Amino acid sequence: MTKPAPLFNRLALIGVGLIGSSIARAARAQGAVREIAASARSAATRRRVAELGLVDQVLESNAAAVAGADLIIVCAPVGVCGEIAKEIAPHLKSGAVVSDVGSVKGAIVRDMGPELPANVHFVPAHPVAGTEHSGPDAGFAELFVGRWCILTPPAGADPAAVERLAAFWRALGANVESMPAVHHDLVLAITSHLPHLIAYTIVGTADELGEVTRSEVLKFSAGGFRDFTRIAASDPTMWRDVFLANKDAVLEMLGTFNEDLAQLTRAIRRGDGDALFDHFTRTRAIRRGIVDIGQDSPAPDFGRPHPDLPAEPLPRPYATADDK
Amino acid sequence: MTKPAPLFNRLALIGVGLIGSSIARAARAQGAVREIAASARSAATRRRVAELGLVDQVLESNAAAVAGADLIIVCAPVGVCGEIAKEIAPHLKSGAVVSDVGSVKGAIVRDMGPELPANVHFVPAHPVAGTEHSGPDAGFAELFVGRWCILTPPAGADPAAVERLAAFWRALGANVESMPAVHHDLVLAITSHLPHLIAYTIVGTADELGEVTRSEVLKFSAGGFRDFTRIAASDPTMWRDVFLANKDAVLEMLGTFNEDLAQLTRAIRRGDGDALFDHFTRTRAIRRGIVDIGQDSPAPDFGRPHPDLPAEPLPRPYATADDK
Repeated sequence: MTKPAPLFNRLALIGVGLIGSSIARAARAQGAVREIAASARSAATRRRVAELGLVDQVLESNAAAVAGADLIIVCAPVGVCGEIAKEIAPHLKSGAVVSDVGSVKGAIVRDMGPELPANVHFVPAHPVAGTEHSGPDAGFAELFVGRWCILTPPAGADPAAVERLAAFWRALGANVESMPAVHHDLVLAITSHLPHLIAYTIVGTADELGEVTRSEVLKFSAGGFRDFTRIAASDPTMWRDVFLANKDAVLEMLGTFNEDLAQLTRAIRRGDGDALFDHFTRTRAIRRGIVDIGQDSPAPDFGRPHPDLPAEPLPRPYATADDK
Repeated sequence: MTKPAPLFNRLALIGVGLIGSSIARAARAQGAVREIAASARSAATRRRVAELGLVDQVLESNAAAVAGADLIIVCAPVGVCGEIAKEIAPHLKSGAVVSDVGSVKGAIVRDMGPELPANVHFVPAHPVAGTEHSGPDAGFAELFVGRWCILTPPAGADPAAVERLAAFWRALGANVESMPAVHHDLVLAITSHLPHLIAYTIVGTADELGEVTRSEVLKFSAGGFRDFTRIAASDPTMWRDVFLANKDAVLEMLGTFNEDLAQLTRAIRRGDGDALFDHFTRTRAIRRGIVDIGQDSPAPDFGRPHPDLPAEPLPRPYATADDK
């Protein structure tokens, strides 16, 4: 079966970390673009991207990367996207689609929008996918398969440009949905930003206790704690910017969370077992909903590998049943 | 290679859910005991355990199950262990080891200890392992491999009996450590109970928002939320009992957590990016520590499966690079 024509001639990636390098791998694997140029701020990243052979051209200058590109995706922390937009603006090809992958969209619209010329199509995007690892080595082509990519086209955006970007993300395996930036920021505040804040908090709490040592926390983490550490291992720069950029929505969700936590705390203090049981039964159903729609693995433990039982019976230098 | 002699002649399991059935499977696979009797409260569980052929005898009566057993492991929610101890006490064989698998140990010592006769060895235990699934079908023989089992022998416990129970757990693949019950309850409050409480809270919060629909929460859960739902899907009865039984330690840890959350909230409100960055960098290191000691999978995303890219190129019923 022949591959269909590429959706874009030249893709420019500004930043080649986990997300940028996954886009490069997936876009190539699917023939979604003819060529890929990429720029990265750090020399180490540029060297590594070149070694891995992820793109056709690795450049130091963002301006050079976007020259002639008809799709530009800024894959950088939210806090520097406005600055990057300003830097690339004079070098953009007329009619190009300019997008990003930021986890906050209101701030992107506010910071990037005004910097871009009127003759390009600005369509912010957020692929809701990632892992706890960072950098060009961490990416993989399947990262977006079955995940959602949310587009937040500003009012008056060209429907054809929006559809071309949507088609690009679908080619990478993603499901695509559009919504206003402000709604995106509320949805992600509860499904992503607040969970990260809570995870970052509890992992920090566990690390500072006087009564329980760090070694004990690590050893006995399989009781639940380790599930929090995965998301508390996400990229610190990216997450600093997310919380600064989506402050209002995060603080709002945090307020609701605090009320709910106070209520469960009260149930514990009063020994109200029925209230606890009802709450825990309800949350179990939500897990089932996520697994049912394919947004998480149905395998127990996220499908974590469980090593085999010891093959050689252990020495038993003590009384056994036969000694009795 | 011949298997060494069994460690115990007859194992009695009171309760055959996720943990009890995993013990049965692992003990058989490792030849750790000669025979296994099990009792379960519900007829459906007894029927299923018999169908699965997990044990030699499935009994309705706990008293009958413990008759002649030299190792008894109560695998029931913490809240009913005292009652079970009282029920089985008159039927225990002299010299038997009586243990449990409860996630709280102070309450177990308090509730079970006084009920048991002086001629048995009471050694409470807690295998720090589990999944989000419940019931006899959910168990598997490898559940305890590489995980920790904590013993909390009361003062004056017979060292030989403690060592035989430790050997049993090592035969199932676990690492064994002993500590006082009160310290266990503090350690588990931070590594397990508080994480569960927080997960139960945030999953509940997300389910009750007016501005964001449940369908949106489920769809976009890959941004972090889904990691919380796994542990918020744990058995409601077991967890109700844990919070009631370990109230003081949980409330103490919760107090520290709330202070830390207030501090991070303040950093967000004030736009203190440096404080956020420093905190997030520290928590990343803790994740690394857990992976380094083998208590979690080093694979990204807990090793969650990522489906392949779409094999057939998607139809592209829109302008492509070739049309321009």
